[in-house]
Amino acid sequence: MSNTKRIVVIGGSAAGPKAAARARRLDPEADITILQKDPDLSMASCGYPYYIGGVFSDRKDLLSTPAGVVRNAEFFHNVKGITARTKTEVLSIDRAARTLHCKNLKSGQDETVGYDKLIIATGSVPRIPPVSGHDLSGITPLKSMEDTDYLRKKCDERKVTDAVVIGGGLIGIETAEALQRTGIQVTVVELLPQILMFLDWDLAKTIENHMKSNGVRIITGNGIAAYLGEGESLSGARLQDGTEISCTLAVVATGAAPNVALAREADLAIGETGGLEVNEYLQTSDPDIYAAGDCIETTERITGGRVLAPYGDLANLQGRVAGENAALGNKQVFPGTILSGICKVFDHSAGSTGLSVARAEKAGISTVTVVIAGPDKPHFMEGRPMVTKMVAEAETGRILGMQCVGPGDVSRQVAEAAMAIRGGLTITDLANADLPYAPPFSPAIDNLITAAHVLQNKIHGAMKGISSTEVKERLDAGEDLFMLDVRSPAEYEAMCLGVGETLIPLGALRKRLGELPEDKKKEIICYCKISLRGYEAARIIEGHGWENVKVMEGGLVAWPYELG
Amino acid sequence: MSNTKRIVVIGGSAAGPKAAARARRLDPEADITILQKDPDLSMASCGYPYYIGGVFSDRKDLLSTPAGVVRNAEFFHNVKGITARTKTEVLSIDRAARTLHCKNLKSGQDETVGYDKLIIATGSVPRIPPVSGHDLSGITPLKSMEDTDYLRKKCDERKVTDAVVIGGGLIGIETAEALQRTGIQVTVVELLPQILMFLDWDLAKTIENHMKSNGVRIITGNGIAAYLGEGESLSGARLQDGTEISCTLAVVATGAAPNVALAREADLAIGETGGLEVNEYLQTSDPDIYAAGDCIETTERITGGRVLAPYGDLANLQGRVAGENAALGNKQVFPGTILSGICKVFDHSAGSTGLSVARAEKAGISTVTVVIAGPDKPHFMEGRPMVTKMVAEAETGRILGMQCVGPGDVSRQVAEAAMAIRGGLTITDLANADLPYAPPFSPAIDNLITAAHVLQNKIHGAMKGISSTEVKERLDAGEDLFMLDVRSPAEYEAMCLGVGETLIPLGALRKRLGELPEDKKKEIICYCKISLRGYEAARIIEGHGWENVKVMEGGLVAWPYELG
Repeated sequence: MSNTKRIVVIGGSAAGPKAAARARRLDPEADITILQKDPDLSMASCGYPYYIGGVFSDRKDLLSTPAGVVRNAEFFHNVKGITARTKTEVLSIDRAARTLHCKNLKSGQDETVGYDKLIIATGSVPRIPPVSGHDLSGITPLKSMEDTDYLRKKCDERKVTDAVVIGGGLIGIETAEALQRTGIQVTVVELLPQILMFLDWDLAKTIENHMKSNGVRIITGNGIAAYLGEGESLSGARLQDGTEISCTLAVVATGAAPNVALAREADLAIGETGGLEVNEYLQTSDPDIYAAGDCIETTERITGGRVLAPYGDLANLQGRVAGENAALGNKQVFPGTILSGICKVFDHSAGSTGLSVARAEKAGISTVTVVIAGPDKPHFMEGRPMVTKMVAEAETGRILGMQCVGPGDVSRQVAEAAMAIRGGLTITDLANADLPYAPPFSPAIDNLITAAHVLQNKIHGAMKGISSTEVKERLDAGEDLFMLDVRSPAEYEAMCLGVGETLIPLGALRKRLGELPEDKKKEIICYCKISLRGYEAARIIEGHGWENVKVMEGGLVAWPYELG
Repeated sequence: MSNTKRIVVIGGSAAGPKAAARARRLDPEADITILQKDPDLSMASCGYPYYIGGVFSDRKDLLSTPAGVVRNAEFFHNVKGITARTKTEVLSIDRAARTLHCKNLKSGQDETVGYDKLIIATGSVPRIPPVSGHDLSGITPLKSMEDTDYLRKKCDERKVTDAVVIGGGLIGIETAEALQRTGIQVTVVELLPQILMFLDWDLAKTIENHMKSNGVRIITGNGIAAYLGEGESLSGARLQDGTEISCTLAVVATGAAPNVALAREADLAIGETGGLEVNEYLQTSDPDIYAAGDCIETTERITGGRVLAPYGDLANLQGRVAGENAALGNKQVFPGTILSGICKVFDHSAGSTGLSVARAEKAGISTVTVVIAGPDKPHFMEGRPMVTKMVAEAETGRILGMQCVGPGDVSRQVAEAAMAIRGGLTITDLANADLPYAPPFSPAIDNLITAAHVLQNKIHGAMKGISSTEVKERLDAGEDLFMLDVRSPAEYEAMCLGVGETLIPLGALRKRLGELPEDKKKEIICYCKISLRGYEAARIIEGHGWENVKVMEGGLVAWPYELG
């Protein structure tokens, strides 16, 4: 028997090939094999919706290096010195013998593959609600190249006029945009009260509004009850409330579960989340077996809880760590996630990092929070608005989370917030952060810094904030709030709340204080487009003795409801 | 005498109005006055080059709020409750009497203004080399609205065909682009060996190349010797080496010095940098006097040294701190700078944060460093390249600095690096950072993370890097290096070094090892477009026994010289 170390990787999508490549680079002697059930390797699965929607049209781009070389078995052999076997399904793991029982899907032959170190990167499997009609033709998840090819073909044929997307998560929303862009009328059906659960309701609602303005229909709080067919083909969808939607294409995007069937059969520990349990070295309960990617659970860094974090970037990072540790022994630690994510939705972007208020409070952390709106550049550079919600720990001021949506440069905002959270920065740290500024890139004071400033003001009592959702609830409940819009008449003309508000432009406010309620205890709610002038107004009014003056956070830009 | 606190601010550009506004918000009772020598207030001076170059054409945009209201004295009175007096020059400070001796430039009258707390925000004054002819008409700095109006007029008139910009710093380069965009042939003259001194030579050179490809002429290592005139008008410039350039417009952008004349006369402490000395509360050597903006020196956070950091964003942040402390006593600390900056140069961006190798070594810190090149998005999303240089402390791995240039999304890169430095993150932390990823925004592995990975590889000996500048120097010195390009023939055809390199595509390398030098000790330098394949090649070659294999960092994308 040779002394060459045999490293075997199950799974050839993101984490698997990365693990194999890293192991190869660190151990030129090892015998490294990837076993992949699918026909392709290293698929850029995050790119599927963009190929379907026609953002690019060369299918090979999903499978090739930036230099245009397809990452097939020959590529892995010649370039990486790795044996990559596609259409090879692993049927079971014999941990005692350190062997895998495999089936060659091309030849139908069974065979046995031995390993010294094994890396499991089996990804996830789509969750398919087993409702009646789910096997009609025209219904597909979006998980594989095969699914991608199917949806692209449907778009290219231009025969489908109406489609439903079941599930308003990341994949559902990206797919809905892709289909809608090719001229298909898309209806998104989401069981929960909102789309994009990584966002809070109010921010998700602004994205929902933007999708609707691009023609997508969105139905929340409703799920699929049955697919309807004509013969063997899909002709419609019936929802749980009885609504029927005519459609000949349905994409099922109701989430995915860690693919741990093999691991479970091999008696490897599975966590409460349903993901494979691994330690900080990404080692499973068997020291000879590592795991990486969507099939594992990982540590949420802020609370220390275990979570599923099926993100493409983390799969790559975990693959690198697992590959290194499999090759050299436990050297690299994977420190966990802060759940950073982002997506593009037509002309808006939506991103999040760290904890929401709900998630933090669930973990027993008291929070302070703020919503601001602001442009991504100065007005003279045609800055585009963004709404930012920031969450900090009440006791320490440590930043816990941040969400950002809008047409502006959300990517920079979320990236810098992710780094701030990773570095344990506080509101005070952010308030004087030194970020790169020039007019083509940001306002003089970056929105993240502004959010910290406003949060400081709230904490020190210089500003009392009220959320748009609280305002709406109280107005809907018939409360008599004094709503004060301090924009110009021209701005008001173009767009307003229409809830019986009073308009006094900020510049005239000091002279028109007589128009405010006589009762100095009456609650007054100030706002403007982004509530910066609203804040100025509140300070002026408070300076004149009114005692219950609030600023509606984020102003009209962050108002998630219809405008008057 | 009233008990109302009198807060007086000298200077009405960025830091001054911010300080006044902050003081007002925190102390509704105070009597707050801004004394401004110029006719305008709150000018968006960072926007001057964009107005000059026609990016926008409404002059008012430089002086107004995002809602379009001009920030004049009436605005400050009505909206902010602040007395803002323009064309009012402060001639001297009487610290004992706590009075200012002022001159009303409209009426010519002298007057005295008393203060309880004073905030000095006098900005900077342009350094004008006193060479012969410097008073000819057609020569201007770019410092004021008046200068801006003058340059915009020159562009609009379309009479100037040739201009020189003296100084290749931030303002010089932004102005050069602005003028060139309006059809003027611009020559930038820089005394130092490179433009944009916040960048290292190699990265600055790629920006220089990009400017040249946009038609700007750039002369480095040469200064202005004399302006030449026809009558009273500029007709040319003679450089220190005797070169003469025909031009009818010259912009002097040779830097600015803190404007500390008033403070110096009042015997306030001035630092070695020439900036006003302040403590962490931005308090000068007189406890009743605060200072903020370009006139002060501040702490460079990493080394603790004192620096000038004349950035618009810091001026605003400092103004906020000084205003708060003047109003409420010393509450807020300004923690200093990490020298983050960015600029747009035609279709490229250039940014920097933290320390360069030179600056770190000067402070006695040993460093490790790396240059990488990579796209800002996956290839199928038309990712645009960027070159990133990262500097870390050798002993601890703590990130010290980062520079980034190229057509890609440099802004996000520098912003996240700035936050990483602020949080004290190390290479190990960055190697598994959790950043927001989706194909429209970044590659699966963000460039900053890739830089950390490559630095890990260098530190652990998995990769030996060599800089493009070292390669060039050694080739120029006639050394016989084995240069190995591992791209495809088609890529080679389109662009190559042309230094006698050998081309073996990576995919063929394992079969063509016979073409490598027989001597296994011979130095082999591998590279490709970005040197990712170059790194793979080096690992393969080392795996076959060659002992001195290096990767040219950043590949052809980071090569700052002409290509063959």
